[in-house]
Amino acid sequence: MQPVSRRGFVQAVGATAGAGWLAPTGSAQGGAPDAGPDRTVHLSGDGIGLSPRGYAALLGELSRRTDVQEDNYLLGGEVERFEQHWAALLGKETAVFMPSGTLANQLALRALAGAKRRVIVPEMSHVYNDTGDACQTLSGLTLMPLAPGAATFTRADVEAVLARTAGGRVATDVGAILIESPIRRLAGQMFDWDEAKRIGAFARERGIGTHLDGARLFIASAYTGISPAEYAAPFDTVYVSLWKCFNSGIGAILAGPKRVLDGMFHARRMFGGNLWAGWPAAVVARHYMEGFVDRLRSAVRVSEDFYTAIAQHRKVSVERIPDGTNLARVTLRGVDVVAVSRMLAERGIRLPGVTPAGVVTLGVNETWNRTTGGDLARAFEQALG
Amino acid sequence: MQPVSRRGFVQAVGATAGAGWLAPTGSAQGGAPDAGPDRTVHLSGDGIGLSPRGYAALLGELSRRTDVQEDNYLLGGEVERFEQHWAALLGKETAVFMPSGTLANQLALRALAGAKRRVIVPEMSHVYNDTGDACQTLSGLTLMPLAPGAATFTRADVEAVLARTAGGRVATDVGAILIESPIRRLAGQMFDWDEAKRIGAFARERGIGTHLDGARLFIASAYTGISPAEYAAPFDTVYVSLWKCFNSGIGAILAGPKRVLDGMFHARRMFGGNLWAGWPAAVVARHYMEGFVDRLRSAVRVSEDFYTAIAQHRKVSVERIPDGTNLARVTLRGVDVVAVSRMLAERGIRLPGVTPAGVVTLGVNETWNRTTGGDLARAFEQALG
Amino acid sequence: MQPVSRRGFVQAVGATAGAGWLAPTGSAQGGAPDAGPDRTVHLSGDGIGLSPRGYAALLGELSRRTDVQEDNYLLGGEVERFEQHWAALLGKETAVFMPSGTLANQLALRALAGAKRRVIVPEMSHVYNDTGDACQTLSGLTLMPLAPGAATFTRADVEAVLARTAGGRVATDVGAILIESPIRRLAGQMFDWDEAKRIGAFARERGIGTHLDGARLFIASAYTGISPAEYAAPFDTVYVSLWKCFNSGIGAILAGPKRVLDGMFHARRMFGGNLWAGWPAAVVARHYMEGFVDRLRSAVRVSEDFYTAIAQHRKVSVERIPDGTNLARVTLRGVDVVAVSRMLAERGIRLPGVTPAGVVTLGVNETWNRTTGGDLARAFEQALG
Amino acid sequence: MQPVSRRGFVQAVGATAGAGWLAPTGSAQGGAPDAGPDRTVHLSGDGIGLSPRGYAALLGELSRRTDVQEDNYLLGGEVERFEQHWAALLGKETAVFMPSGTLANQLALRALAGAKRRVIVPEMSHVYNDTGDACQTLSGLTLMPLAPGAATFTRADVEAVLARTAGGRVATDVGAILIESPIRRLAGQMFDWDEAKRIGAFARERGIGTHLDGARLFIASAYTGISPAEYAAPFDTVYVSLWKCFNSGIGAILAGPKRVLDGMFHARRMFGGNLWAGWPAAVVARHYMEGFVDRLRSAVRVSEDFYTAIAQHRKVSVERIPDGTNLARVTLRGVDVVAVSRMLAERGIRLPGVTPAGVVTLGVNETWNRTTGGDLARAFEQALG
Repeated sequence: MQPVSRRGFVQAVGATAGAGWLAPTGSAQGGAPDAGPDRTVHLSGDGIGLSPRGYAALLGELSRRTDVQEDNYLLGGEVERFEQHWAALLGKETAVFMPSGTLANQLALRALAGAKRRVIVPEMSHVYNDTGDACQTLSGLTLMPLAPGAATFTRADVEAVLARTAGGRVATDVGAILIESPIRRLAGQMFDWDEAKRIGAFARERGIGTHLDGARLFIASAYTGISPAEYAAPFDTVYVSLWKCFNSGIGAILAGPKRVLDGMFHARRMFGGNLWAGWPAAVVARHYMEGFVDRLRSAVRVSEDFYTAIAQHRKVSVERIPDGTNLARVTLRGVDVVAVSRMLAERGIRLPGVTPAGVVTLGVNETWNRTTGGDLARAFEQALG
Repeated sequence: MQPVSRRGFVQAVGATAGAGWLAPTGSAQGGAPDAGPDRTVHLSGDGIGLSPRGYAALLGELSRRTDVQEDNYLLGGEVERFEQHWAALLGKETAVFMPSGTLANQLALRALAGAKRRVIVPEMSHVYNDTGDACQTLSGLTLMPLAPGAATFTRADVEAVLARTAGGRVATDVGAILIESPIRRLAGQMFDWDEAKRIGAFARERGIGTHLDGARLFIASAYTGISPAEYAAPFDTVYVSLWKCFNSGIGAILAGPKRVLDGMFHARRMFGGNLWAGWPAAVVARHYMEGFVDRLRSAVRVSEDFYTAIAQHRKVSVERIPDGTNLARVTLRGVDVVAVSRMLAERGIRLPGVTPAGVVTLGVNETWNRTTGGDLARAFEQALG
Repeated sequence: MQPVSRRGFVQAVGATAGAGWLAPTGSAQGGAPDAGPDRTVHLSGDGIGLSPRGYAALLGELSRRTDVQEDNYLLGGEVERFEQHWAALLGKETAVFMPSGTLANQLALRALAGAKRRVIVPEMSHVYNDTGDACQTLSGLTLMPLAPGAATFTRADVEAVLARTAGGRVATDVGAILIESPIRRLAGQMFDWDEAKRIGAFARERGIGTHLDGARLFIASAYTGISPAEYAAPFDTVYVSLWKCFNSGIGAILAGPKRVLDGMFHARRMFGGNLWAGWPAAVVARHYMEGFVDRLRSAVRVSEDFYTAIAQHRKVSVERIPDGTNLARVTLRGVDVVAVSRMLAERGIRLPGVTPAGVVTLGVNETWNRTTGGDLARAFEQALG
Repeated sequence: MQPVSRRGFVQAVGATAGAGWLAPTGSAQGGAPDAGPDRTVHLSGDGIGLSPRGYAALLGELSRRTDVQEDNYLLGGEVERFEQHWAALLGKETAVFMPSGTLANQLALRALAGAKRRVIVPEMSHVYNDTGDACQTLSGLTLMPLAPGAATFTRADVEAVLARTAGGRVATDVGAILIESPIRRLAGQMFDWDEAKRIGAFARERGIGTHLDGARLFIASAYTGISPAEYAAPFDTVYVSLWKCFNSGIGAILAGPKRVLDGMFHARRMFGGNLWAGWPAAVVARHYMEGFVDRLRSAVRVSEDFYTAIAQHRKVSVERIPDGTNLARVTLRGVDVVAVSRMLAERGIRLPGVTPAGVVTLGVNETWNRTTGGDLARAFEQALG
């Protein structure tokens, strides 16, 4: 799937997955200049939790290593090469760098819908819930939410909307369909993949555009073995976040056909997304995306070993998300969670916030490769007392 | 004007203006790690033309020097401190980091106008010409262009628009007035300052919001001695670019009253301006903005010496922009401009593109401090043959 | 409820309900000038099915009878008097004449919502289904559809939307709630009246505007005995159609508080609703609205007698709409519907279209007063053979 | 030009121009049923100043004379026939009935512009000044005003806008050009006809849509001899008002190509322009538009005789509008204007309002045919004393 083999990558950076591979020098890990590689295990987050110091050190190293070409308002240079890399990776004609996923999603829907202003979205989607009705307010789209509370809607749901739309007294048309998978508001549940393919095919027949909000698409690939390009295939356009898994601080990629994306830099500027320099994000994201799926798969194995082991503990229960990805809900009963957190922290294990009921949502990311399932379970056992 | 004295700054970085002050180590200048400070004189651009390598090196150094706190979608951490610094500097209640000036201008006008949808702008302004009608298309504002081809419109022009508006068959109101100064499309001409103050006072009386597009405001200050805070005073809101003079790659500041700017991060996100991490731009811009006006004033003296000297040359004429700032048009007659450019480049002097008619637009920036007017004139004389 | 008593009205036109009351002269009924009053019974429609000739004759008579004052773009004259009459009738401060209900609904929601762009609507409402997404496209509102397939949503449904809205990553607010009752797409079902009052009270507490799409509000009053003013009371604004029950050809009334409606004529003009002359519709609607509820109540009794009688017939079944108003579905089995229609037509009884399955939707209106339940049942029995 | 010859029309109504031709019976003129034809001369207004009683009587007569077919939300029936009549008359493929000119202009520009959102308009146009920025606010168009204070802009002006637009940093395109002629805000001045044709041809080359706001187009035809169809030819779409010259109370016609207008009834409804019944306006407008240009030409001759005669009077001066149409400014000096008005009124001559400076704007309309230039001048002489 990855055009650059992991082997090549590993050789280039002289490191191995699961053993601090991403630290060409200690300084890249945010420690003091002379510290060794960062071995902190972050039990949440999609990325590695790069500190400002770590980010700056890595950027310095990457820019020393190659002669990075500047872009100009995101045009040309390293950003253009980066876009081409993504287009090839996702099997699309072209790709456009966006400052944020919020903008990537909106500009995709705006362009796909064209004069047909209704857009079908999951009722639980980010676009429908967490963008301040941006598509409606700024692009005059009417979002039609489907499948309340669920990750998946069906082709039949789509057909019902089309029938309803056709029966209105004033003609309106459905111009686009958005699917989000994994879906953030449902703890990383995935859209049913067969249904997604059916909907994609149906939409294509009907001349309706399709967009995949694949902010965390690479995480799904690590869990299912379906490659990002396979996931992207049924859709016209697909967005992937750069800063979530790839630690770039900013940025998103929107890939798709030239007829939709060529000239989109104009809309990007109109919305104020005309960053002067995108090369830092391109350089850092490029660094982490190489081999990411393989490394995350390795981290998943660590996590599965851990969940299996820790679920035996009498003070712990583990709730897995059906059709889920890298999130799981762990309940700690009858323990002092502050003390547990502190004891784990002393061993370089960072636990995210725990609710008063003792529930903590763990997220698997590359830093789990810095330990093993067994070691992690043992650390918990000791901390739980 | 600057809350941090230039003296303090100079001590901190151990350098002096006009002599490579901004290079705490060689690596910050984009050369090889062991190269000395960058001494290239860029005869155009508002900033210093930092290379990717130079930018990364500087970011590394700045983040090693202090413990930079991360922001979270531009909220908190270094970005919040940076916003507070700007609010104080410009004499406003608060300030908001924006990914681009295009967005800063639009969100300011959108908020100031509220339900009164007409906005007065200079016909030559960036907002009116170079944003794809963003304010009209995305925010439903009606821009009323004044003073075709000129930098300044008058209070009388404003009153005429108000009278025309009041006479329409359907009530519409003017909600905001934008002034751009210096104005990009007029080679850095400034809006007449007395007229600006009159318009500001008039607008305040009438309950009309006012916004200053001061992308290059600090350049004006270097030429006029009027401080950024004085320039900002007659206006409700003011925008200053971060990447132009302050080499931060991305970003803009919008300062103004809390009643206008509090909560604006919601609109910023709706437009897709919700960058995950703004701290790199904040750190770099903060570095360069300290003492900028003084350093640019010094560079202006270099340029004035140069223009006076070179204007004597029989092959050269110098056209200054009336009410202009850091741009001047220089015509080279009867010379091989390619050869001239090459010969200057050999001495570390970068000439921007020359038109077939031999006209080149020079821009004064901090790098002029790396030479003197006399040295620069001599280099030209030799290159001109 | 009606400021002009039905008695006074009846005396004025010299006619009695149930016996051609609305025909001061034969010409008003669309027959030849010398024909007697129109006795046709229209078994569908909310109004009396006035022909062009009948409309023109009535308009002529009404304008001869009083000195009608012209309006000017819907301002002043008869239209202003008409608006005042409606405001008093509905117990609101003021009222505005609108060319259509589509515009009345949109301008009400647009004004009520203000800067809070989310608007709760019934999923089956006219606004949500039959206006081409006008509110979304032209006014930038985000409609939040509730209660799929049902007439009534609940206060709990509303609270769930508010909770969801509050949890989004970008602030958006619910600015208005619309209720439609009776609801056209559900065959005239009414919104649960107690729930409507609860929602109205809740919205008022929360500072959310409320609007009643009461296009056929007077029909509900005839069925429930709840007066139009009582229905209007829990809502900020209410719209009633003029042409449906009141035969005016065009027009709608929007009543509500001055803070919402004063100055709305500007928006009406902006949308192109600035008819030059509204007086004809005002004159005709005023004629028919006086005493309408009483007359329709009388027609309802005719219809109830008829449904009771005809339901005994072995070829007929009658389906009443739960919480319904003037519509009922009648199925004719084993008959030649074309012949039935013709035989009824010969007796001055107009049957609407019948589906291939023999289903016809009957609608009670004033013309049912031109017969009795018994006569109508007998006419059907004979036609059914 | 007129597809129905004036002769045929005159025979049909049994009347002659200039002698009460439009009063087939006394009642049509708004007097008491037995009064003779209305002989009032209205010295202002584009129509005949039909009273409510006169309008209703005429509508009654017209609907008795023929079997008017109802429309249904402006579709079918008399309205459809009326649209076909207009399409033929203006030499366009199709035509659409609109409730108002405000809506006709906006929907034309909205459709012509499509995705190219800039629209060139005269700075003095109705669309730019008197619609509350409807095109900008509701349709997201950016109006580019040309030729401040003047009736005519030039092809060169258009080219300058295109050049400016092409030079912006974000692509925007000019999608449509509007011309208004005669222009209301300039007292009926006409756009230079040769320039209009040049602009039309240029726009066609460039793929830019063109629209003529010809609200008072038939008045221009009476003055220039250029037929409405000739005027319409250089433009894609043209709007003509129905109520101004044709006394229909409401309505406008928009004619143009099917590719632009087919399906526009959807947008008409979305904007709330979905009147239930348009047939009354269609019937009345059809009545008055037949032979209108010839009758107005006759009235123009009356007015010219009058202006020539009265200009000799020492208390009177007459100011004609350059390139004007039916308006002229007459100044009365040293007279009691109240007394003058009253004395004229006693002779059935209605003078519009006079300014304190004695200036009155006269407007030629069909009612001037009820007198002669000589009689009118004599009436003035006597009234002036």
